[in-house]
Amino acid sequence: MNFEFQNPTRIIFGAGNLSRLGEVAGEYGKKALIVTGGGSVKRSGVFDRAVESLKAAGISFAECSGIEPNPRITSVARGAQTARKEGCDMIVALGGGSVMDASKVISAAALYDGDPWDMILHGQEKVYVPTEALPVITVPTLAATGSETNCGAVITNEETTVKSFIQIPLLYPKVAVVDPELTVSVPKDQTAYGVCDLITHVTESYLNGIDNTPIQDRLAEGVILTAMEWGPKAIADGDDVEARAQIQWAASVALIGWCQVGTNAAYPVHMMEHTVSAYHDITHAAGLSVINPAWMRFAAKTNTAKFVQFAERVFGLSAKSADDLDCALEGIDRFEAFLRSIGCPTRFSELGIDDALFETYAQDTVKIVNDGNGNLPGIPPMSIEDMVEVFRSAL
Amino acid sequence: MNFEFQNPTRIIFGAGNLSRLGEVAGEYGKKALIVTGGGSVKRSGVFDRAVESLKAAGISFAECSGIEPNPRITSVARGAQTARKEGCDMIVALGGGSVMDASKVISAAALYDGDPWDMILHGQEKVYVPTEALPVITVPTLAATGSETNCGAVITNEETTVKSFIQIPLLYPKVAVVDPELTVSVPKDQTAYGVCDLITHVTESYLNGIDNTPIQDRLAEGVILTAMEWGPKAIADGDDVEARAQIQWAASVALIGWCQVGTNAAYPVHMMEHTVSAYHDITHAAGLSVINPAWMRFAAKTNTAKFVQFAERVFGLSAKSADDLDCALEGIDRFEAFLRSIGCPTRFSELGIDDALFETYAQDTVKIVNDGNGNLPGIPPMSIEDMVEVFRSAL
Repeated sequence: MNFEFQNPTRIIFGAGNLSRLGEVAGEYGKKALIVTGGGSVKRSGVFDRAVESLKAAGISFAECSGIEPNPRITSVARGAQTARKEGCDMIVALGGGSVMDASKVISAAALYDGDPWDMILHGQEKVYVPTEALPVITVPTLAATGSETNCGAVITNEETTVKSFIQIPLLYPKVAVVDPELTVSVPKDQTAYGVCDLITHVTESYLNGIDNTPIQDRLAEGVILTAMEWGPKAIADGDDVEARAQIQWAASVALIGWCQVGTNAAYPVHMMEHTVSAYHDITHAAGLSVINPAWMRFAAKTNTAKFVQFAERVFGLSAKSADDLDCALEGIDRFEAFLRSIGCPTRFSELGIDDALFETYAQDTVKIVNDGNGNLPGIPPMSIEDMVEVFRSAL
Repeated sequence: MNFEFQNPTRIIFGAGNLSRLGEVAGEYGKKALIVTGGGSVKRSGVFDRAVESLKAAGISFAECSGIEPNPRITSVARGAQTARKEGCDMIVALGGGSVMDASKVISAAALYDGDPWDMILHGQEKVYVPTEALPVITVPTLAATGSETNCGAVITNEETTVKSFIQIPLLYPKVAVVDPELTVSVPKDQTAYGVCDLITHVTESYLNGIDNTPIQDRLAEGVILTAMEWGPKAIADGDDVEARAQIQWAASVALIGWCQVGTNAAYPVHMMEHTVSAYHDITHAAGLSVINPAWMRFAAKTNTAKFVQFAERVFGLSAKSADDLDCALEGIDRFEAFLRSIGCPTRFSELGIDDALFETYAQDTVKIVNDGNGNLPGIPPMSIEDMVEVFRSAL
């Protein structure tokens, strides 16, 4: 293990903490840009409560609403323009992962004269790395992406059909106000997608990491087990604040960096899903739910011991040996069955996607990240043909 | 769960990273106060290598050597005076837990005109809370306290025979340069004490926390299991850098806050041990090794389900039910046997301590922390008599 780690985000976690937003924001200025999505925060009253808390602390605001589920670079540019025009001192991201991701990029774009797409890794010759950004306060309304406590953001360029990311320490939110009560209105399907999303964040680093990271492994298994125990409770009864809190915390921990630190893991399932959802406006986690089990069956053939550990520790199976592929595959079957049990799709056909663009997704994926030999990094590295095989197995 | 969490320390982890000290320190100024202990870093050559790295980065230094294993407030005052007199911009803590703890308090004391003991919680009417401190860079030479990545420090007042602590966000180290190679010269007994120390940090929050913290529980179990697997390897072969790295990372994670966050746990075993080692100059972890199993047998009677979980998940035992006290006690026996197997004492007699001051330790403990009813906080809260009973059972 040889690594660097620093996550400076201050987390304020617990039911009822939305009322502290103004107090928290007061440390960063007098005017906020509130970024929101399709309007659910307005319908639920969360927006009004946030504004009330800001106003009570003497903080005025401007708005950037309408961030898409797969947030677009044009929306980022629009938000940055508003922040500049209105002289905002900070960004308050009030929504799910797409709102938080867009907010992070807006925070840097507001202080950059060029095209914000310059910051997003997309195969360009020179990536622009921003060095200053407005402070961001995240207020998640969905337990899913963990964007509230990390420095990553995924953005789509609708013009070029590219979906890719930026991940730099500058974009760590200053504060994450994580109030699980805000998620009680999330419908069953989105709750389930959130559970799938957070689990996939963990399986990626768990199954693509270096050997001998026993603490990170146990934590990853703990996140998965917690999501599998409490996720169905939150889906069954959306008003179960305890269940909402457990999956919210699991979602934050899943991508806060604690599971990933030192694993040096690539995220092949995410990379593949991004290219798929660049072409089809599907929920990110729905794409993950289809691709992840298919990828697992492919990867288990070479990384058998880790999949055996997954089968034993997460599903209580007993392997005959560390290279017991049958046990590994049984663990993956159980995992896929869990995803189905909470209503997540596990086949492309359920998403209305056929095999027409499989080769294109694969080609696009390695355009964004490759190992220098044209393969997608991961354990094992994947050729174009490997990716197409995985996609095909999930038809 | 309702909590706040923020740990801003930048961690640079991995064998060979001592050479990066100068580069890292360069961000904080031109002159360092290097704080060290009894001289082992000089004998091992680590001091010279640290100085070489600093010099190469154009950083000069002053020294504060001779920090005691139980660091004294007089040494803190001496270090602070040197830092002021020499115009140091930063503190480099090069040593074990005592050196790092002393360094943190020196960093605040250097900018405070009063008595540094004012900052240490010891039953005074008004605790002085410092608001500024010199930046601290920790370079641990022992895998044990986890002080390298947290904001706590334990200091002894030899005049009044009080050992107590300060724990405030101001004291988070700016950077922890964690190089497991620096620990290969640690002798077997100190390596074992380190393993005991880090495990006890985790058992405290695990066994004294609120219910329903499943992720923190799994992480805590992971730290314990990792320490139990790799600790004996590091003891058997001190040059096993992989084993050294595993227990070093376990020690850091044990008290970085990730296991503790949201558990709202008291640290009763530590509080009792501090009063014992205020009277007897024993290694902190030797005291913990004696008191922890004795406390566990006491606490298991009321908090049985959690001890059953400990027995099942850490030692693979199978309980008849969640309140199977026999299983819980069997887990504690196994834990005590592990401590003995690595050479840690589990009876006061092994430390040359008799029952003469048991009542005094207990009285002193609640002088520092109590729940308002004269009891020591924990699960369950402990009366003076309870503490004496625990001490007596470990005679």
